[in-house]
Amino acid sequence: MKRVKLVVAYDGTNYSGWQIQPNAVTIEEKLNEAITSLTGENVKVTGASRTDAGVHSLGNVCIFDTETRMPAEKISFALNQRLPEDIVVQESCEVSMDFHPRFSKSRKTYEYRILNRKFPMPTRRLDTYFFHYALDVEKMAEAASYLEGEHDFKSFCSANSQAETTVRTIYSCAVTKEEDIIKIRVTGNGFLYNMVRIIAGTLVKVGCGDIAPEQMPRIIEACDRSAAGPTAPAHGLTMIGLDYE
Amino acid sequence: MKRVKLVVAYDGTNYSGWQIQPNAVTIEEKLNEAITSLTGENVKVTGASRTDAGVHSLGNVCIFDTETRMPAEKISFALNQRLPEDIVVQESCEVSMDFHPRFSKSRKTYEYRILNRKFPMPTRRLDTYFFHYALDVEKMAEAASYLEGEHDFKSFCSANSQAETTVRTIYSCAVTKEEDIIKIRVTGNGFLYNMVRIIAGTLVKVGCGDIAPEQMPRIIEACDRSAAGPTAPAHGLTMIGLDYE
Repeated sequence: MKRVKLVVAYDGTNYSGWQIQPNAVTIEEKLNEAITSLTGENVKVTGASRTDAGVHSLGNVCIFDTETRMPAEKISFALNQRLPEDIVVQESCEVSMDFHPRFSKSRKTYEYRILNRKFPMPTRRLDTYFFHYALDVEKMAEAASYLEGEHDFKSFCSANSQAETTVRTIYSCAVTKEEDIIKIRVTGNGFLYNMVRIIAGTLVKVGCGDIAPEQMPRIIEACDRSAAGPTAPAHGLTMIGLDYE
Repeated sequence: MKRVKLVVAYDGTNYSGWQIQPNAVTIEEKLNEAITSLTGENVKVTGASRTDAGVHSLGNVCIFDTETRMPAEKISFALNQRLPEDIVVQESCEVSMDFHPRFSKSRKTYEYRILNRKFPMPTRRLDTYFFHYALDVEKMAEAASYLEGEHDFKSFCSANSQAETTVRTIYSCAVTKEEDIIKIRVTGNGFLYNMVRIIAGTLVKVGCGDIAPEQMPRIIEACDRSAAGPTAPAHGLTMIGLDYE
């Protein structure tokens, strides 16, 4: 028996998110099917992040245990032949049996992309959120800096979260602009339900001038979801990856 | 009567190219339908570039003549409400009745994108050509520089072209790399059938080491399609735009 770790990239457009559920097509289900087809075992993966419907990933992580004699490094190639083209395993390797993608400590990085121009750009409609009103990127970056550090992020957590604690540490939250695309890149030790999308929605309000950057500390301290901005749409969000300690 | 110029962006994935044809869905057809629906006139657009199936555009140009009283600048907004989300008019304006998108002189810019990494990236599968073997970007850039200037590009023209002359001027052909994406950006006074895709296919051969950069002058001089590399896949190609004199 060995434990195999997969790094998985996907375009979330055509899926009802990561987590397996009845009457819906999910990333987790497609992975289970591909691994079961490859190994002949009834495999169920355990994932690091249950991304929502429409959210993309360059490197979500999951594990499964298997008796297969195929070397762990070769599994990526074999699975990619069994997966649809919008799910691609980027890496496969053996890990110790006590490694758990969710409970082992990691730094997680997400990127929220806003296409900020007069008209939508068809080729980027699936992985950016189109917003036509010109946003002030400098103000957004200033506001983002207040999020860095250890805080109670209850204001940035959807009401239906079941998290035990809403305290998280954000190591960095940077806002940059490349051509027409504003990128909010945030790295932390963990994120609450919808947290990055609520951060993005709040920073869009800052970029519009509806919220001043200096109001961010009060929004955090409020510990009240209604103090922050709206939840930005799922398709602008991409999980970049996880670095385990 | 006025002549209206449209700048049109599209994701070519779901279309059989620009040019209208029976039993196929094309960009031109969708534009004709939207304009006819808006103006009540039986309108047929005239386009600048008949891009192939799967090729994208950030700014193809077309014109149509209309009696509509709607100001030309407002037409973009009205058409976008009638177009599918993978075709978006970026600009509409009135032009003189002697302006012709194909015969009026212009500088045309195309970009061919190669995703050069070990595994495909699902979120960029529609607008980049995946190539896993590591390419030498410096050699590709060196080879590309030989294409600049006025040349007979017959070696870079598909056999079924009906062009009167195969002489064209390339003002610049630059190869750059951003993260995993190699971009071949080429600007010229006009391009032969499949010319940019054959340039891309030839530069990939250079990047692999199959063709030395110094061989490029001889490939051009051969005036023989078989001297150049293969035609790279359509979906890696994006028409960036046209600048009229």
